[in-house]
Parts: sequence; structure tokens; C-alpha cells
Amino acid sequence: MTASGLEGVVAATTQLSHVDGERGELVIGGYQLEHLAESATFEETTWLLWHGELPSVAELDQFRRALAGLRAIPDSTLSLLRQCAERRIDDMDALRMAAGTFSLVGDDAAGIVARMPTIAAAYWRLRRGLEVIPPRSELDHAANFLYMLSGEVPDPERVRGLETYLNTVIDHGLNASTFTARVITSTGSDLVSAVTGGLGALKGPLHGGAPGPALEMVFEIGDASRAESVLRTKIESGEKLMGFGHRVYKVRDPRADVLARAAERLFTRRGDMSLYALARTVEAEALRLLEEYKPGRRLQTNVEFYTALLLHGLGFGVELFTPTFAISRVSGWIAHAFEQRRANRIIRPQSEYVGPRDRQWVPAAERA
Amino acid sequence: MTASGLEGVVAATTQLSHVDGERGELVIGGYQLEHLAESATFEETTWLLWHGELPSVAELDQFRRALAGLRAIPDSTLSLLRQCAERRIDDMDALRMAAGTFSLVGDDAAGIVARMPTIAAAYWRLRRGLEVIPPRSELDHAANFLYMLSGEVPDPERVRGLETYLNTVIDHGLNASTFTARVITSTGSDLVSAVTGGLGALKGPLHGGAPGPALEMVFEIGDASRAESVLRTKIESGEKLMGFGHRVYKVRDPRADVLARAAERLFTRRGDMSLYALARTVEAEALRLLEEYKPGRRLQTNVEFYTALLLHGLGFGVELFTPTFAISRVSGWIAHAFEQRRANRIIRPQSEYVGPRDRQWVPAAERA
Repeated sequence: MTASGLEGVVAATTQLSHVDGERGELVIGGYQLEHLAESATFEETTWLLWHGELPSVAELDQFRRALAGLRAIPDSTLSLLRQCAERRIDDMDALRMAAGTFSLVGDDAAGIVARMPTIAAAYWRLRRGLEVIPPRSELDHAANFLYMLSGEVPDPERVRGLETYLNTVIDHGLNASTFTARVITSTGSDLVSAVTGGLGALKGPLHGGAPGPALEMVFEIGDASRAESVLRTKIESGEKLMGFGHRVYKVRDPRADVLARAAERLFTRRGDMSLYALARTVEAEALRLLEEYKPGRRLQTNVEFYTALLLHGLGFGVELFTPTFAISRVSGWIAHAFEQRRANRIIRPQSEYVGPRDRQWVPAAERA
Repeated sequence: MTASGLEGVVAATTQLSHVDGERGELVIGGYQLEHLAESATFEETTWLLWHGELPSVAELDQFRRALAGLRAIPDSTLSLLRQCAERRIDDMDALRMAAGTFSLVGDDAAGIVARMPTIAAAYWRLRRGLEVIPPRSELDHAANFLYMLSGEVPDPERVRGLETYLNTVIDHGLNASTFTARVITSTGSDLVSAVTGGLGALKGPLHGGAPGPALEMVFEIGDASRAESVLRTKIESGEKLMGFGHRVYKVRDPRADVLARAAERLFTRRGDMSLYALARTVEAEALRLLEEYKPGRRLQTNVEFYTALLLHGLGFGVELFTPTFAISRVSGWIAHAFEQRRANRIIRPQSEYVGPRDRQWVPAAERA
């Protein structure tokens, strides 16, 4: 029997993250998400996934400096990004192309993670006709990404907001991009190949591409008083509500809470809670209506809804949403590549043939 | 329970190819491999996989011309290949990087297939300090690849030999690279992403990288009289004999016969059968000794053994073996991407968490 989409098929054991869809829990490297996401730096979470333990102060210091020293990208990568910008290439395609060229300077895990924000920020600026801003080595990973986008050293609240997001989405079981990275690694291939494959999968709208539409829906509603009527119209016309429902989570996605709190803090600091309040109202109304129209379907707020709000709060346009997701998830892909290598077997499922057999070859000139 | 390497798990239904490992049969698009491989042009086989039927004369003519018109590569791709050559980058990494840049000129299936030989031949020449030879549109796909490598219009026997190889390896169930392409496609991603992922997987020595060592073993033996002693030493020291054994085929890989015949024809034309005869002796001796040392394991000659011999007969060095494999398999990857799209569900298996839980967060300064 064909396992459609491999749902329910266990394809690997892992020590990296645990998704409990019934309890609404996400464990990352042994920690409940909510304990880790709001406290750790991205460097710490990456180290945790790669080494199985949080780093000591000395290890963390060394790792931060190693990453900071590896952020520069080859000239060929930059010139490829310029070509992409000239041709208005899709952001994720440009990111995949640029990340693929990391093989020019090696295949080390730290280098790949260190250079991802560099290419994402460079491309974002090139698409806007702005000059590329080189990285600053005294800034940490998340802070430096914000700096390379704007040219301004970010305040700690924005760094914390971004870091909370990066920690939240760094790993999530065998999602399609992580699984892609493991399949590629299982052949004995290299890290850049695994990451390039992961980026190709993450680009797909069924995987990493939905936060944008979730935010657009909030803007479309615009005012709390319109939430019910707009949402009813959408549901009644058969439109899917973006930001709700998840294949694995049947209760509230634990990532939604962490990101909602981070967004709340960010908007509080900025002194304008109107969008946050509107989003909360839209969420509550959507959940109420989904239960009314689709009782028992257990459609809950997913990670995308508050991802959109938080990243918007950081000043990111929707075009940066999936690239920023990639900047985080690349650490997870590499952790899975390491794990796959430790007990490797090539991943090669079966297919069931349902096509014709015993056709007889006829030369082209004699075909009907 | 974890399905290690997803062995035996059916992950898709397909109309493209059928691998019967017990009967030693391979059906491609409804045709027994041996009927198709020796007769069809590569353009016909590609069309067959993409459309489910062999093309009419008019369709074939149009498709040949379409492919021939799409062979040129962007300047950025060529300049990236020059950078790769300067840094002596691995052939498959260079191919993956260059194929990734095809997004600069679109995402059409024919364009991707048409440009693969161009980048493979260009890189092969650049690595040797030779000038790149532009494609010639009056030559067919296989002939043009041979031309771009050497600068000489190849004779029909060499074209037929290459075409038989390309047809033979164009598709083979859910091998790891094809599966990678399907997982990436299942997220709603594009063809270049799927192909780039496939190239990353094909690079791995457990997938596409073994024909070289199979040939090296024949050269190492050098003379038929040494076959038994060299092979006995290898087996007794626990060395794996390259070119023998396959996860799926428990009888002779049908591709081995097709490629052996193609190699025999090629060497016959060239008037020197010594290497072919040696390979035949090595094969017979290896099979005899494998049955002696590992009775019941059913280790049979696989596709790699005669791939090596045939491609060597075409004048290809081992560095061209996997790139040439890729030039063929890319048509299969794209056929699978089309098929995945027709009845898509995102491919997202489960993992089983075996790591720690309920760890308590401790700030870095307080860690032991």
C-alpha cells in the first residue's frame, strides 16, 4: 500500500527535536521550546543541535567568533546575486543559487550557517538598488543580520525578537526540507548539497511559503469590526484561512504562543499595539468560526500566523519571511545531516508501478 | 517502527519505470529496457517519460529542434564554472552549482535537459585549461555532447553507444536522487530546485559514484590470469567488490546486459577487444568467487560495472561518469516532478524522538 506523502511513516530516529502534535509540545535538543526560544542566542541553539548539549561559556565564545569570522562571501557569489537582482529572480531561488556556490570556499557547517544571512541581506538590498553592507564581526549572528539589512546597529529588543523567531523554527522533526537534506546526505553527499536541496524544498508554498498570506489576511480585514464578516465570506467561499491548521498539530502549535509573546513584547516597546490587537481579534474570530463551520477538524493557529506578525514587527517585508526562515532552519538541516551520517543507510523507498507493460518498440517513421 | 532507509516502503505510485528485482526486469515507459535502450534516441526516451507515449515523427522533430535551440547557457553560469575550475572544484559540485543558475533563464523542462550537457562539457574542458566549445544545433542531444567535449563530430557508433547508456539510466524507480526531486516538488517548488536537489544526491558515492572504482578494479587486475588471485585477496580482506551487488536486484541487473552489449559493439568497431575480454573474465571470476565466499547472498553484476566499460570505451575519464549519468537522469527527475504534481501531497514522514526531555534551561554563565 502506498503511504501517501509518507504520513505516519517513521523514516528516522532523532535526538534533535520532538513534535507532539496531540499534546502541542515541541522539544528542541531536550528543552521545551518555550524555555529555550526566549532565552538562548541563536549560536547557543545551533551548538545545542550540533553537539547535543548547550555550550560552555568558552565554547560559546569560540563558536561566536568562528561564525563571525566566516561571514564573508566569495566575489563570484556576490556577482551571481547581482545577476539575479538584475533579472528580478525570486528571493528563494537567489538564495538557493548563492548558497550552492558556498562549495567554492568549502563545505564546513559553521561557514554555511555564517554566510546565510550575508546572502539573504545582500540580495534584499540588491533588489532595492541599494549597496551591499558588509558584515560586522563584533555583532552576533542575529544582530549582524539586522545590521546588514539596514546599516544600523539594532536595539536589543529587535535582536531578541529575531533570535526568538530563529530559535523557534530551527528544527521541527522530519519536515519536507529537513527530510530532503537527510535523503541527500544518506547518499554520502556533502553539506552544501544537503542545504541546497533543503532550500529548494523550503521554497515550496506548501512548506515555507505561507506566512505572507497570513499577514495579508490581517491587513485585508484591517479593523476588528470587519473580522467576522470577512472571515465568514472566506470560509463560505471555500477559501483556506492562512495561518490555521497543521498536518501534525491537532492542538495549538506551541510555536504560535512563543511567537505571539515575542510579537507582543516588540509591539509594546514600539508603543503601537493596534496591529497586534487586531491580529489577536482575527485569531480568536477565526478559531471560533472554524469550529462553527468545521466542527471536530481541530484547526488551530499555526506557526505562520504569528511568524508573520513578529517579522512584520521587526520591519521585514513578506519577501524576507522565507529567507529568514531559511537562515534558521539551515542549522537544523546540518544537525540532521550530522545525525544521518552517524548511523547512515541510504534512503531509497519503493514505488508501485501502475503504468503499461510489454509495449512493442516501433520506429518513429512507422508510428501511427 | 523505523523503516531503515525506507526499504520496502512504497512512497509513490508511478507510470515511469518498473524495477523488478526478483525477475531482473526494468520497464521504462511501458517498454522492456532492452527494446528501448538500443533503438531510441535520447530525445525519444525523454519524450516518452514526459508524455507517456513515444513521439510521432513531427513531435520528435519539433522536440529535437526545441532542445537544440535551448543549449546556450547564461554568461553568469559560464563565469561561475570558470571560478570552479580555478579552484579545482569537484565535477559534481560544479555541475550542481551551474544547474542551479538555470533559474536565471527560466524553469522549463526542455531548457534544463538541453543545458545539462553544455555545463558538463564546458566544465570538463575548463578543468583541462581548454576553451569551451559552443553547442551545434544541427547535432542531436547525445552527438552534441560528444562534440562539445572533443570538438569533433562523432561517428554514429559512438553516438549510439552514448545514447544506449543515456536511455538505460534515465529512470529507475525511487532511487535517492529521484526521491529527492519528488520530495522537493511535493512542496510546490520548481523544477530547477528539484534538479539541483537530485544532483546533490547523485553526487553521493552510495548513489551515483561507483562506476569509477569498478573500472579501476579491472585495470588493477590488468591480466585475466591475475583475476582470481586479486579478487580472492580483496574478498578475504573484507573489501567490497565494486560493480557487484544491488539493494533491489537479486538477479542480474538488466542494465548490465544492455550496457555489456553496447560496450562489446563499441570495442568491436574499434578493433581492440582486449579490455572487453578482460572485463568479461573479471566479471565471471567475481561472480564465481562471490558465490563461493558469500553463498546465498545473490550478489550479481550491477549497472556500474559495464557503465564503466562503456563510458571508458567512449573515451570518457572517470571524472565524466557521474556527470554523464546526471545528463540522462535529469529527464527522469523531471518526469517524476511532473508525475508528483499531477497527484500531489507534501512528502513529510515522521521521526521517532530518542533524545532527552525536560532539560532545564541554565544561562551560559551558570553552566558547569
